[in-house]
Amino acid sequence: MTERVFNFSAGPAVLPETVLKRAQRDFFALPGVGSSVLEIGHRGEAFAGILHDAETRLRSLLSIPDDYHVLFLQGGSRLQFSMVPMNLLRDTGDSSDYLLSGSWGVKAYKEAVREGTVRVAWTGKETNFDRIPAQHQLEINQNARYFHFTSNETIQGVQFTDEPESNDVPLVCDASSDLLSRPIPINRYGLIYACAQKNVGPAGVTVVILHDEVLERCARSLPGYLSYREHVQNKSLFNTPPTFAIYMISLVTGWLLDDIGDLETMAGINREKAGILYQAIDQSDGFYQGHARPDCRSTMNVTFRLNNPQLEKTFIEQATNERLCHLGGHRSVGGIRASIYNAMPLEGVVALRDFMINFLDRHG
Amino acid sequence: MTERVFNFSAGPAVLPETVLKRAQRDFFALPGVGSSVLEIGHRGEAFAGILHDAETRLRSLLSIPDDYHVLFLQGGSRLQFSMVPMNLLRDTGDSSDYLLSGSWGVKAYKEAVREGTVRVAWTGKETNFDRIPAQHQLEINQNARYFHFTSNETIQGVQFTDEPESNDVPLVCDASSDLLSRPIPINRYGLIYACAQKNVGPAGVTVVILHDEVLERCARSLPGYLSYREHVQNKSLFNTPPTFAIYMISLVTGWLLDDIGDLETMAGINREKAGILYQAIDQSDGFYQGHARPDCRSTMNVTFRLNNPQLEKTFIEQATNERLCHLGGHRSVGGIRASIYNAMPLEGVVALRDFMINFLDRHG
Repeated sequence: MTERVFNFSAGPAVLPETVLKRAQRDFFALPGVGSSVLEIGHRGEAFAGILHDAETRLRSLLSIPDDYHVLFLQGGSRLQFSMVPMNLLRDTGDSSDYLLSGSWGVKAYKEAVREGTVRVAWTGKETNFDRIPAQHQLEINQNARYFHFTSNETIQGVQFTDEPESNDVPLVCDASSDLLSRPIPINRYGLIYACAQKNVGPAGVTVVILHDEVLERCARSLPGYLSYREHVQNKSLFNTPPTFAIYMISLVTGWLLDDIGDLETMAGINREKAGILYQAIDQSDGFYQGHARPDCRSTMNVTFRLNNPQLEKTFIEQATNERLCHLGGHRSVGGIRASIYNAMPLEGVVALRDFMINFLDRHG
Repeated sequence: MTERVFNFSAGPAVLPETVLKRAQRDFFALPGVGSSVLEIGHRGEAFAGILHDAETRLRSLLSIPDDYHVLFLQGGSRLQFSMVPMNLLRDTGDSSDYLLSGSWGVKAYKEAVREGTVRVAWTGKETNFDRIPAQHQLEINQNARYFHFTSNETIQGVQFTDEPESNDVPLVCDASSDLLSRPIPINRYGLIYACAQKNVGPAGVTVVILHDEVLERCARSLPGYLSYREHVQNKSLFNTPPTFAIYMISLVTGWLLDDIGDLETMAGINREKAGILYQAIDQSDGFYQGHARPDCRSTMNVTFRLNNPQLEKTFIEQATNERLCHLGGHRSVGGIRASIYNAMPLEGVVALRDFMINFLDRHG
């Protein structure tokens, strides 16, 4: 077996080792089933148990009320960028509000524009998406069909600490990169979606949590796979779901419940990990330049630059030699990005901090 | 480790044991990478190699010409039921032709109707979808945008042996349940799609093979995830693909090349397996009643009934006790269905045949 590295990839991202070992142990034949989890029918008893586990553990961790539906879909957040406005905006004559705090919010906005009238409630473009707006900066249309925001921007490394106040307008959130990283008040939301490959599971499955009143406002006639109504009516079995990815969600949520305890504890660990890296940035006398404004910093993606691209390249190469991998920033912005989701162990963050200090000593 | 059963599930279905063992061995950390295949970024070097392997092995097995594109998408065939007419029919003012040889063809048709004008070129409904039409029975509109058929119907167990002749109309095929089970002349097709969970890999990924001329006829403005153009331009990396499922395709196609050899050999094995079960049906003096007309029988899904539902229930229960599992017909039609895709070993089929003969002796 190859020795494992510390993997700072932004996603697909590191998974808990205990989860990987459990999945590996049972991979060839699920205990009591006699087939691999990859081979079992999605309407059979064994998979029904897995789907039930994944949903009930998510409900338990996030305290999801009974009047919210939980779906496991395919197509990633990119398909949700379209499904949200198809279901809630198209052909209504109304408009929706979008808050653009980074690259993903902009992409969601661009897909929404195809489906109807969309207002920009705020954009961080002028300051290169280095911040989250204060509540008083938001212009919310109280007649909007919904208000969309991105709770954490992986590319810029900015994150909301609290939900924006949208009053009676349903709050729709792309929580792809921080769902399950901390407790959130679900009843503040109309709809939350998150591709799994950051904190929730592997690539290939997207969690959608939506309130029953939002479902009632969804379009009644849409192509089958694109209709939330179809998926709710069929309890995520409208067609063959990504069974293995859902199985992995059941294990990851089991790990959070059994090994971590709850999302408050997980959030504390995540704050501690992020604090270690931001301290290294702040104590570097400008050698490391954080991208996000300090009060808007993400606990998930720590983004910073060095003085020149050549030095950044050297940083990434030397880090990789010390088994600190995938620290390059997103191809659209460059720089350095350390993604430190739930499953990144504290020792990985400490190792990166120590490397940053040593690198500064050598090159500062 | 639990002992494995013979799994006759229609999908997700049995996978080759050597593939499962290889995936299990490397599950915790890919050799030379130091992370699980579940944890690696989709734009990194390691996954680029996996994606390349999956595509080149598919191209090799199916002799896919260079002017065809190969895509790995999410959403299953159900999303393809919509994407095909969205890309090729919507807003054109033209019509398309659909051949309905079973339940899946009907479902594809119903989604196409949402997007434009659709003609039924033939339907097997009158005889309960027990047959495939002869060429002279097809009414093909030579001005149709495309001609859609389902090469194998898993629920009824009927299968085309040759492609229908559509002349200059691009042939579009849902090959979900028999792609890779036999050689096919790719250059006869404009577009082929197949969810993976029968012969190609696990649930969660759908293969789309389309000719460059068909791509040229695709809509230029569609929601991002629903556009073939976007996926082709981005070489299946428009967004995070289902990385693990694609990895499994690379292993399954590797097994076909290394352990089986080619699709002609695989087709011979599949004909032999199917022949064993159909012979047991034909020699049962009507105790087992095959659903499909003999000349239209599927090599993938062997469907038959017994004299009454109670006897069928007993058959399924006793088979399960002998580790012959998941033999119930689809919930929409009942009866017995033995799905014997590529990875079902000959000994599983022989064991089922022996069980059928013994069951006939006891209950006939």
